[in-house]
Amino acid sequence: MPSNESANAFNAILNPRSIALVGASAAPEKAGGRRWKTLVEGGFDGALYPIHPKAREILGRRAYRSVRDLPGPIDLAVVIVSPGDVPGVVADSLAQGARGVVVVSAGFGETSESGRLVEQELATAARASGARLLGPNCAGIYSGPARVNVVGWEMRPGRIALVSQSGNLALDFADLSRKTGQGFSRAVTIGNAADVRAVDLIEYCLNDPQTDVVLAYLEGFGPLEGRRLCELVDAASTPKPIVILKPGRSEGGRRAAMSHTGSLAGEDRLIDAALRQHGILRAFDVEEAWQAAVALTKRVPMRSNSVAVLTDGGGHATLFCDAAGLAGLATPPFSEPTRRALQALLPERCATSNPVDFAGLAERDPGVVPKALEICLADAGIGGAVMVGHFGGYEKLGGPTLRPQEIDAASAIADIADRHQKPVQVHSVHADANPPALVALRDRRIPVLRSVDMSARTLGHLVQAGRLGRPTPDAPSAAASPPYGIRPRSAYAGSSWLQEPEARTVLESWGVRVPRWAVVGTPEECARAAESFGGAVVLKLVSAGALHKSDIGGVLLGVKGPDRAAAGCSELLAKAEKASLGDARVLVAAMVQGRVELVVGAFRDPQFGPAIMVGAGGVLVELLDDVSFRLAPVSGAMAIEMVQELRVGKLLRGYRGAAPIDVSPVAALIARVSAMMSECPEISEIDLNPVILADDGAHVADARIVLDHSI
Amino acid sequence: MPSNESANAFNAILNPRSIALVGASAAPEKAGGRRWKTLVEGGFDGALYPIHPKAREILGRRAYRSVRDLPGPIDLAVVIVSPGDVPGVVADSLAQGARGVVVVSAGFGETSESGRLVEQELATAARASGARLLGPNCAGIYSGPARVNVVGWEMRPGRIALVSQSGNLALDFADLSRKTGQGFSRAVTIGNAADVRAVDLIEYCLNDPQTDVVLAYLEGFGPLEGRRLCELVDAASTPKPIVILKPGRSEGGRRAAMSHTGSLAGEDRLIDAALRQHGILRAFDVEEAWQAAVALTKRVPMRSNSVAVLTDGGGHATLFCDAAGLAGLATPPFSEPTRRALQALLPERCATSNPVDFAGLAERDPGVVPKALEICLADAGIGGAVMVGHFGGYEKLGGPTLRPQEIDAASAIADIADRHQKPVQVHSVHADANPPALVALRDRRIPVLRSVDMSARTLGHLVQAGRLGRPTPDAPSAAASPPYGIRPRSAYAGSSWLQEPEARTVLESWGVRVPRWAVVGTPEECARAAESFGGAVVLKLVSAGALHKSDIGGVLLGVKGPDRAAAGCSELLAKAEKASLGDARVLVAAMVQGRVELVVGAFRDPQFGPAIMVGAGGVLVELLDDVSFRLAPVSGAMAIEMVQELRVGKLLRGYRGAAPIDVSPVAALIARVSAMMSECPEISEIDLNPVILADDGAHVADARIVLDHSI
Repeated sequence: MPSNESANAFNAILNPRSIALVGASAAPEKAGGRRWKTLVEGGFDGALYPIHPKAREILGRRAYRSVRDLPGPIDLAVVIVSPGDVPGVVADSLAQGARGVVVVSAGFGETSESGRLVEQELATAARASGARLLGPNCAGIYSGPARVNVVGWEMRPGRIALVSQSGNLALDFADLSRKTGQGFSRAVTIGNAADVRAVDLIEYCLNDPQTDVVLAYLEGFGPLEGRRLCELVDAASTPKPIVILKPGRSEGGRRAAMSHTGSLAGEDRLIDAALRQHGILRAFDVEEAWQAAVALTKRVPMRSNSVAVLTDGGGHATLFCDAAGLAGLATPPFSEPTRRALQALLPERCATSNPVDFAGLAERDPGVVPKALEICLADAGIGGAVMVGHFGGYEKLGGPTLRPQEIDAASAIADIADRHQKPVQVHSVHADANPPALVALRDRRIPVLRSVDMSARTLGHLVQAGRLGRPTPDAPSAAASPPYGIRPRSAYAGSSWLQEPEARTVLESWGVRVPRWAVVGTPEECARAAESFGGAVVLKLVSAGALHKSDIGGVLLGVKGPDRAAAGCSELLAKAEKASLGDARVLVAAMVQGRVELVVGAFRDPQFGPAIMVGAGGVLVELLDDVSFRLAPVSGAMAIEMVQELRVGKLLRGYRGAAPIDVSPVAALIARVSAMMSECPEISEIDLNPVILADDGAHVADARIVLDHSI
Repeated sequence: MPSNESANAFNAILNPRSIALVGASAAPEKAGGRRWKTLVEGGFDGALYPIHPKAREILGRRAYRSVRDLPGPIDLAVVIVSPGDVPGVVADSLAQGARGVVVVSAGFGETSESGRLVEQELATAARASGARLLGPNCAGIYSGPARVNVVGWEMRPGRIALVSQSGNLALDFADLSRKTGQGFSRAVTIGNAADVRAVDLIEYCLNDPQTDVVLAYLEGFGPLEGRRLCELVDAASTPKPIVILKPGRSEGGRRAAMSHTGSLAGEDRLIDAALRQHGILRAFDVEEAWQAAVALTKRVPMRSNSVAVLTDGGGHATLFCDAAGLAGLATPPFSEPTRRALQALLPERCATSNPVDFAGLAERDPGVVPKALEICLADAGIGGAVMVGHFGGYEKLGGPTLRPQEIDAASAIADIADRHQKPVQVHSVHADANPPALVALRDRRIPVLRSVDMSARTLGHLVQAGRLGRPTPDAPSAAASPPYGIRPRSAYAGSSWLQEPEARTVLESWGVRVPRWAVVGTPEECARAAESFGGAVVLKLVSAGALHKSDIGGVLLGVKGPDRAAAGCSELLAKAEKASLGDARVLVAAMVQGRVELVVGAFRDPQFGPAIMVGAGGVLVELLDDVSFRLAPVSGAMAIEMVQELRVGKLLRGYRGAAPIDVSPVAALIARVSAMMSECPEISEIDLNPVILADDGAHVADARIVLDHSI
């Protein structure tokens, strides 16, 4: 679908000129009454039509019995009627020219299979009319610039666009919005998403000039929608922060998501890696997601993870520093010039390292806070600052004369933050009570938080977001691609698994290094091959009927010398005969001594498409659970990052005096596996285990390639 | 100090019959004015004396110029005057009979070394009069049953005792108390703790019938105070939950704690293990600590970690289940009878596995929530339940007629929780707005939380607390002690490090298994020893001047046969001669082939005393950082737990088809090391690395024992 047409259709939903609400009511306790009320009170300045079977007017607007009776065409129809009546209302609305239909009514795909078919028909009908349909079973929409509010509760306008797979989460964010004084450009709950999908709306919001930050609650993605999201971000002309609240870290969370929204099961660590790879922030807690979005509306990047901590005294600074360490932040001691400047400003009893502790002074003279902040932010090593304690509530202890001083200090804090273009946050015990000084900060988009832990996590997100839009050190390009090799489907269409000799042939054709090998049919051939390779060999039975070689004892490791090789071959062929495997041959391969074993894998994720994995191999696999994921395509430079992220990366960098191991051969191998996945859609899975890193390169000692017959 | 005398002294502070506030004022913006106001308004019914240089009365109470002018003796003096005046006021107060002195004034140890000396003198003077002194530099005290409030802000009475190393944290908890409707039995801020220490107050509160839960904010412990806390808990006649908010997970947090309260540096993982070992809960976030304390006031244990999740629909249930998995909880599908009962109750569209999703029904009929809860709690496999979503706020959407129904449902929820004696929590988007139904829940001590993440963490703490008071499977007893061995001080008083032969002799005397070894002075002796041991040997240079053997190349590994042993011995002795080591000998020891290497260590922690560590050894040490700590004494059964906690525990349980390795020999070794630490105070450190686990037992291949000369 061309994006212009898409934007037009979404404009009918988010920037309509006329709206009919079918099921409007004067009773505020009804779903239609509540939404009609917020719609009328929201100040929408286009035509508004309540549709009701009997009423003549509702809240001062003339009511109509049916959409068909309206005096003119409509852009948007909002439908809140019993599920059986929905198809007729939708048809009437489309006939009346609606290009957007929002179905709040429930009782469709979430209830039964027949309901699912009905909602699919609704979506088809809408698309056939050039319209888009939101829902069914959604809570409604809010569009601040258009003054459209059909969620049925108060929404505060602002610069955050919310896309939510849950109406209750939208209610939750609306409550946090009231508390934090930041608001929404748009808020859309997608319900069953029969037509309009979350990713469609994220695309709209990325291009929406009214939106500074996109916030989404997603339990999962539809087929390949995760990849589409990543591609949208890559294609955006100017980067815009996206925060996704997405559960899935624990088994219980994944099961609940599948039961709630029918999400696809996915490898959560891949989701994590894919989002990070594309500069999308991920949160797991509602307030964490909201606070990150609020902080990002300021659009001030955090260029270093070092935070200056200022406190009016007490344990909050210690708790902040502790949480900061876990959130990827540092709270290092200040430079000597900064300390000296702070010492010149503050009495001797105040700590002037990091944290700066005003030790009771700020409660008497709040103006000292911006003065110290100015000094800290001028320190080139400092990326941002936080004031923790009970700023904003000093008047509660020290009396009302402090109020104007606190407000002045708040204003000075915001000025200094703007001048230095570094993120500044205020933690305050009084954040929820929202006294005037904190309102003053929030009005200048200085985030004010109630919890030190949340402050640290929010700044951690800003550090992550600071990396947004930075160029990848080595973006994959055609020139960097390895030579093309054999496409397995054309060569070996007979089975969904490649035999190991076939897998080795394919890998070698793509430039992947495999230890010397041969396929033999007799003990004599086997002995000759072993002799020519020298050293120990491994023998593996090869047969279409023996894919799981080790199950029938079809693998012999560490076979030394031609005589033993011949004997081993006889043994394997005898086993094959006993198991009635007519096509049995034996693979002889040189054994490689290495220093570290890795696993390299590739697969097609249902949500994110082709993906690459590298992990610690051998005995460490299960002990360490040490893996790193990326979406394909993966360049050599990205592959090096993947390997360095591993905990076994330590071993590779030269451990306990051992020489470091060059990772470029395994990085090249990973890039080639990535190219195979991109060029050969028929490969569903590649599993190279182990990949042995030796001083002379990376050797694939065992390979499995699985094909997808449907391609 | 006898605990009765101690309780009496603390009674003068927390249950005084008369109070003088020196520095009282009519000005509420002053520290003394604010505190006098809350003290007078708090309704204290004993004698109250404001002391002020000029005023004749303050807030209706007759004022005095000095404590000396008072008409009668006082129990408690609260001192808020300039620091220079404090010593005189304290002396006067003690002369006037005060048994408790609370010094709010700052400007002592936190400011300068001379200030530290002054506060020590104050403490000494108080103790000499049989009194106790709190502070200086503290925020004051609150004692609900005694109606004493000298913190200067409103406090809500309740059953939680707070001991805080920070006044601002007390302010924070007071704010959370207002929001959650739970309150304080006592709240004490300890300031510089010149006399009364946090652990003293925790001891008082453990024995305080007005207190159900002890909550403490601690940045650190004084020398051995951590161990004292653990011993107090063990000695308590009835267990009482303790929640400690204690930073220290990150380097930045530890540095800030040292700078803020002069905390001792300690191994944070030991603190974690020691608290867990003694059933003390640890939190890292302010609200997390508070919510855990609130939930624990209900005194209903959580006997299984399986939680039933009920939701009015939406993503909060998914987010809860996800967070639950990380908090050590499970949200498993219900048993078949439970599902059938839920299906009989609810319409078909509702999910009846776990979570139970009311899908819009609860907002219309809140009474369905307790009905479903009853069914879930009757499931024997379920340890507790949570309702998530927007319960309490249904009236905001569905109209005021729902209010009484929600209140009735709240009451029924509390009844059911009480009847089943299982913890129940409610998460609600409206938790902070505190509508009547949520007040009804809180009045019945059903915790209501604003955040699903916090709900999961709170229930996780309840599961941990459920293990409180359970007997250790095998408590260390005299009978289980190993035979006593050589005490290193008497044998080897000459150095702070034992030479390795001495260390081996000591270890063997305590029943620790060491591979065969001998000390030789000539190549011929070395060859004979190697021959008699058979197999490969290790040769180590032994000399008082060569403690770091490997630094001068003083270790030869894998030496095979008597000839090579003789040559190796010559090589080492030549090195010694070159380095002018006059006393050089050579240790010959059999090399042991094992399947897994561990590290066993023992040390004396400044806060917690003797402690034992076991960890993964060899190359895994740094990759895995896989260690387990306990306070000594450690029994064999506890040692088995320690080893099983390790990630390498997987290797020991029989990994990838390998036979399991018996851990009882290494557990016995750990118990013996523990006994050495208990019996030999002169040992400051034991480091056995590696300990080789082989099929025939646990062998110590290298041993280091460090002595403390001061003992």
